[in-house]
Amino acid sequence: MASTHPLHRLFEPRHVALLGVSRDTGKAGYKFLRSLLDAGYQGRISLLGRQAGELQGLPIHTRADQLPGDIDVAFNLLGPAQTPEVLKAVAARGAAFSVVFTSGFAEMGAAGAALQEDMVRACNASGMRIVGPNCMGLFNLHLGLNLTEISPLPAGPIAMVSQSGNVGVTLWDQARKHDVGFSCFVGFGNQADIPMHEYIDYLGQDEPTKVITVYLEGLRPGSGDAFFETCARVSRVKPIVVLKGGRTDAGRRAAESHTASLSSSERVYSALFEEAGIVEVQQMELMLPVAEALMRCPPMRGDDVAIVGSGGGHSTVCTDEVESVGLLVPAFSDGLQEELGRRLPEWAPKRNPVDMTGAYTKDPSLFATLTELVIERDPRFSAAVNYGLYGLWKDGQVAEDSKYDYVSAAPLIGQLQARLDRPIIFYTPYADRPHASFTAMREAGVPCLESVAAVGAALAALRKRGRFLARAAETPATTPRPPVSAGNPALDDYATEVGAYALLARHGVQTPEVLTAQTPAEAAALADRLGYPVVLKGVLPGVAHKSDVGGVRTGLGDSGSLLRAAEQMAADVERALGAGALAGYMVTRDLGRRRELIVGVRRDVSLDTLGLIGLGGVLTEALDDVAVCLLPATPQRVERALSRLKSARAWGAFRGEPAVPAQAVADLLNRLQSALLSDDAIDSVECNPVMVVDEQVIPVDAAIAAHNKE
Amino acid sequence: MASTHPLHRLFEPRHVALLGVSRDTGKAGYKFLRSLLDAGYQGRISLLGRQAGELQGLPIHTRADQLPGDIDVAFNLLGPAQTPEVLKAVAARGAAFSVVFTSGFAEMGAAGAALQEDMVRACNASGMRIVGPNCMGLFNLHLGLNLTEISPLPAGPIAMVSQSGNVGVTLWDQARKHDVGFSCFVGFGNQADIPMHEYIDYLGQDEPTKVITVYLEGLRPGSGDAFFETCARVSRVKPIVVLKGGRTDAGRRAAESHTASLSSSERVYSALFEEAGIVEVQQMELMLPVAEALMRCPPMRGDDVAIVGSGGGHSTVCTDEVESVGLLVPAFSDGLQEELGRRLPEWAPKRNPVDMTGAYTKDPSLFATLTELVIERDPRFSAAVNYGLYGLWKDGQVAEDSKYDYVSAAPLIGQLQARLDRPIIFYTPYADRPHASFTAMREAGVPCLESVAAVGAALAALRKRGRFLARAAETPATTPRPPVSAGNPALDDYATEVGAYALLARHGVQTPEVLTAQTPAEAAALADRLGYPVVLKGVLPGVAHKSDVGGVRTGLGDSGSLLRAAEQMAADVERALGAGALAGYMVTRDLGRRRELIVGVRRDVSLDTLGLIGLGGVLTEALDDVAVCLLPATPQRVERALSRLKSARAWGAFRGEPAVPAQAVADLLNRLQSALLSDDAIDSVECNPVMVVDEQVIPVDAAIAAHNKE
Repeated sequence: MASTHPLHRLFEPRHVALLGVSRDTGKAGYKFLRSLLDAGYQGRISLLGRQAGELQGLPIHTRADQLPGDIDVAFNLLGPAQTPEVLKAVAARGAAFSVVFTSGFAEMGAAGAALQEDMVRACNASGMRIVGPNCMGLFNLHLGLNLTEISPLPAGPIAMVSQSGNVGVTLWDQARKHDVGFSCFVGFGNQADIPMHEYIDYLGQDEPTKVITVYLEGLRPGSGDAFFETCARVSRVKPIVVLKGGRTDAGRRAAESHTASLSSSERVYSALFEEAGIVEVQQMELMLPVAEALMRCPPMRGDDVAIVGSGGGHSTVCTDEVESVGLLVPAFSDGLQEELGRRLPEWAPKRNPVDMTGAYTKDPSLFATLTELVIERDPRFSAAVNYGLYGLWKDGQVAEDSKYDYVSAAPLIGQLQARLDRPIIFYTPYADRPHASFTAMREAGVPCLESVAAVGAALAALRKRGRFLARAAETPATTPRPPVSAGNPALDDYATEVGAYALLARHGVQTPEVLTAQTPAEAAALADRLGYPVVLKGVLPGVAHKSDVGGVRTGLGDSGSLLRAAEQMAADVERALGAGALAGYMVTRDLGRRRELIVGVRRDVSLDTLGLIGLGGVLTEALDDVAVCLLPATPQRVERALSRLKSARAWGAFRGEPAVPAQAVADLLNRLQSALLSDDAIDSVECNPVMVVDEQVIPVDAAIAAHNKE
Repeated sequence: MASTHPLHRLFEPRHVALLGVSRDTGKAGYKFLRSLLDAGYQGRISLLGRQAGELQGLPIHTRADQLPGDIDVAFNLLGPAQTPEVLKAVAARGAAFSVVFTSGFAEMGAAGAALQEDMVRACNASGMRIVGPNCMGLFNLHLGLNLTEISPLPAGPIAMVSQSGNVGVTLWDQARKHDVGFSCFVGFGNQADIPMHEYIDYLGQDEPTKVITVYLEGLRPGSGDAFFETCARVSRVKPIVVLKGGRTDAGRRAAESHTASLSSSERVYSALFEEAGIVEVQQMELMLPVAEALMRCPPMRGDDVAIVGSGGGHSTVCTDEVESVGLLVPAFSDGLQEELGRRLPEWAPKRNPVDMTGAYTKDPSLFATLTELVIERDPRFSAAVNYGLYGLWKDGQVAEDSKYDYVSAAPLIGQLQARLDRPIIFYTPYADRPHASFTAMREAGVPCLESVAAVGAALAALRKRGRFLARAAETPATTPRPPVSAGNPALDDYATEVGAYALLARHGVQTPEVLTAQTPAEAAALADRLGYPVVLKGVLPGVAHKSDVGGVRTGLGDSGSLLRAAEQMAADVERALGAGALAGYMVTRDLGRRRELIVGVRRDVSLDTLGLIGLGGVLTEALDDVAVCLLPATPQRVERALSRLKSARAWGAFRGEPAVPAQAVADLLNRLQSALLSDDAIDSVECNPVMVVDEQVIPVDAAIAAHNKE
């Protein structure tokens, strides 16, 4: 059944043209044809080359305008100088897609970018779309289509979308260690035309694909919302695993503004991935183990892990790793330990982890029967790790002819996993080498992993997927966007707190009453009206951190204290900034020592706008503890953002205070977004601190960053 | 030249006895003899077995009291029932050491522990010391001594001390991937007699050993100070790498008390390792790469890393990993980028990382010449990573006969590393498989690592070693312990803040003046005397968190505010704890909103006493941000503990406040220790918050945990 997806002619072409073929067997123009023929491609192949004649029994065309008109994919190997003209001709002949292997475009700088843009525009005008340029190629192994230089490649259930060719090749290499293969691959290189979420959308409906792996360095500017919507939908059906390259942006360190520096791209992508149900891994070596686990195992629906196997030190380091990724290895109940005791020698540890001790690895069925016993007796355990198989190692290598045979154990464990509907991972330090026992595990649906790092990452991924699927079952795939009240005219003055408050007030944000005075005596009179204790702040246009220059005094309990504080402030500010810097005083009620948040919104290069929530007050920069919240904010999104903070525990019910009201934070974020969108000149709106007072969140300082209008 | 170390007869025995030999080739009693003979042991071997006769040409003794009297190591394979009597007899004959492979002692519970203790005491009385029991064995491959079941083992420069046998075997397996071998190994199992630091002390002076690896689950109670002193001395000479098993102690989660739960064993060991110059790794798979780097490379003396190689995606993930371990990959200067541009194609990235692009990997000398160029032009770069070699991968495997040959590059890189005195690491995803290119790198002294995780861990370890050696050059190996003023009599009342303050004051801690009142009116009168603003606290014996029950009011600016606050407090406390809980009021000056620390000391199972420093105030538990400081505290130790905190940035010069005065914190810790040691009944002393006021640190709350005396 042919797909009707907009990219189906790209991934399921009936006619492929190779542009730039060569008779030189060392050249790409030869090797790509060989890969295609070796993979057993059954469709039509047309060739374009410099010299007429035949290659591998196929005629070579020498002019692009002589190529047939029904080409699905024109794979381009020509040099950068010839490429634009040839592609325009091929597009004019009616080709649907071109995959441009050729380098020398936007990655070279401004001139290359202009060339690329012009080429894409011309091809698009004829109806042809572009993959790449500067990309590794494409394959769909289940259809015998291989448009990469690498051959042979093992077919299987893993799809890959990669911005880097070498990362793709490294994964194909590692796949052999894991007994897995690939369905489709697309390298998208410069991402000049088709944004990557379109590939993910295709793979979501590609039947042989069971899991989608992604190596991503950056989204196309402005494509973040579409990426989110696509992935949030696809990941309900299939797991998506991503490795984000360029997590630590040197640019971030240099950023001046608070909001810009704290909402680093790492945090934006982390929020985007979590909200869309994408599982992020931190290291290239963890991609395949995580993909393997997500593909083979049911999701994990709780946090508790049972560890059952053989080998003292390994059970300890495995427990450490599982707990260090945020899961738990709690002790079994006394009753369960007693029952295990009836099956195991006296000296075998039974508390969790269970160490069957060496002798028992000779009865491979024990892995399944003990795991079954544990989970049937205590179903709160949501996953199991089996470990061991040290007996396979002999004379310095993993011995294929070992007297220990675990092939018979594999189907028992696989069936148990299916029946209990809980993931079971097998860990043995030898799993990176081939062995019938390991292959049998994988064929039975049980990931067989060689490192504790991989075990921890796999379980963490299964838990994330369990959480995502649970909430996906309850909520619609998309969050409706509330109308934005952009009708208010822009204001002139964003530079002071009073100006910022005025804007926020227009968008329905409740701010405390701020009274402005010119002299200490005036300030005291205003404070008498407000009631004590009060906070006194200096009016200091353009100063980001008033407290650093002595411009904030809290807890002033009477007019005498206020007058002294105002005189002192004038002296401190003059010392720090020079005479004339203090433009007046502001007086507000002191809400006391509360939990302080930072809440802000800003414009973004990928997503239109985004929200920020974090630990506020003077510790904001020291702890750098801020999370991104996608907009429109919902209480659930706010709660997930809070749970990503280092200080997560402070925002639940804590030390006698109730949990932070997520609904109120969401409401504040949406109102700040509305303020941000009211004027194109505004880059960000930030409130810090925002005091948490029962069910309310009250900004007690606000700052707006705006650029000059053209 | 024979060693004169107390353990030299253990590691360099001239006479080994095997107790419990067997003719059955499948049994340990046969296999251990085979290992010993296969390794080429040149010393005398005596055997003890059930049946007289010969085995492998050696006579078998049947009675322990007939064994020769000059045995250096009696290796025991007998069952647990026979072991104690035989060992006592062997000890009585004059044997120096017994390595007890046999299990069935303390790991079995109380009865086994008693048996073990009795056996060790009896053997010690005859002058024999015990390794194990329940241990993997011992080897010294450079002397042909192999007392493990595993054979053959590659000899080399790595020593290993391991509490787990399986972790040892896994490392020996991984060593083949890294072209390295071992010098000495000792499994210490139950650690019944010889504490592990004695082995480290021996290995420190063992000439073939270049790096010491340790797998440790726990120190012997009370041996922490000796462990610290030994390791701090040895690691000045040789690197020590440790993997600590049991980092996440389920018991920690259950702990009630603040200090007990926050000073988890993980933090104690982290402090111990850092202070002693031991490099800790978090995963078993990272031990060998880190050991390899420490052994082969010079230490790293700054934070900046240059990355020079070939392959886009890999350079990105490598940069991410290097920065995620806390090092930096800053951009090269414009001048340097221009110079690189003269050697590289236009499209090659040159900013750092340098991506030579594919074509240039064919000129292997470029790795060395470009790295040299970078570091000679900009010596702030303290390490380099070379990466690439993707061309070695062909047809799905690492091809030994590839047209790409990097053997010639290896000595150039090795010589450059030596000349620049900066580490150079080679990263290629194929390094876990054998290849002449990788072996050549290692032989040239350049670690060749297969994962970005290993690269990050190796560089982080080299940087830690650089820091340790720099400070070791400036300070003596041991910190003199100041005399403890334990002469003060114990107090009766530790349960209230006033009682705690009284004890601290006796030990010279400056505490704020606290005045106690019975009624609100009395409190107001006292506050008038102190001067406003004041803090009002309830006298609440046994309540750990007064603020949770409404028992703390800050910023009270006049007597009216104080009276209202006192009435409100009485009502809040009664609501929370019932009538009669509020035993009075305390009034102190309000120091204002300051940076708040938690500073405490407690007794410990490994170290006698230890100090704690962390983020104080109400966020302490939410952020769980506390570090252990070894005692006696010094300003340097305090600074290192502060640098381990998540909130590290808050304690340097920050937001207009000066750096926390490390001398004052050290002084406070030492005085708290003195208070702790003044009474055996005191378990911990904790001050939270401690306000940082210019050069002073002022505790404004204190709590003492004490147990009832017998």
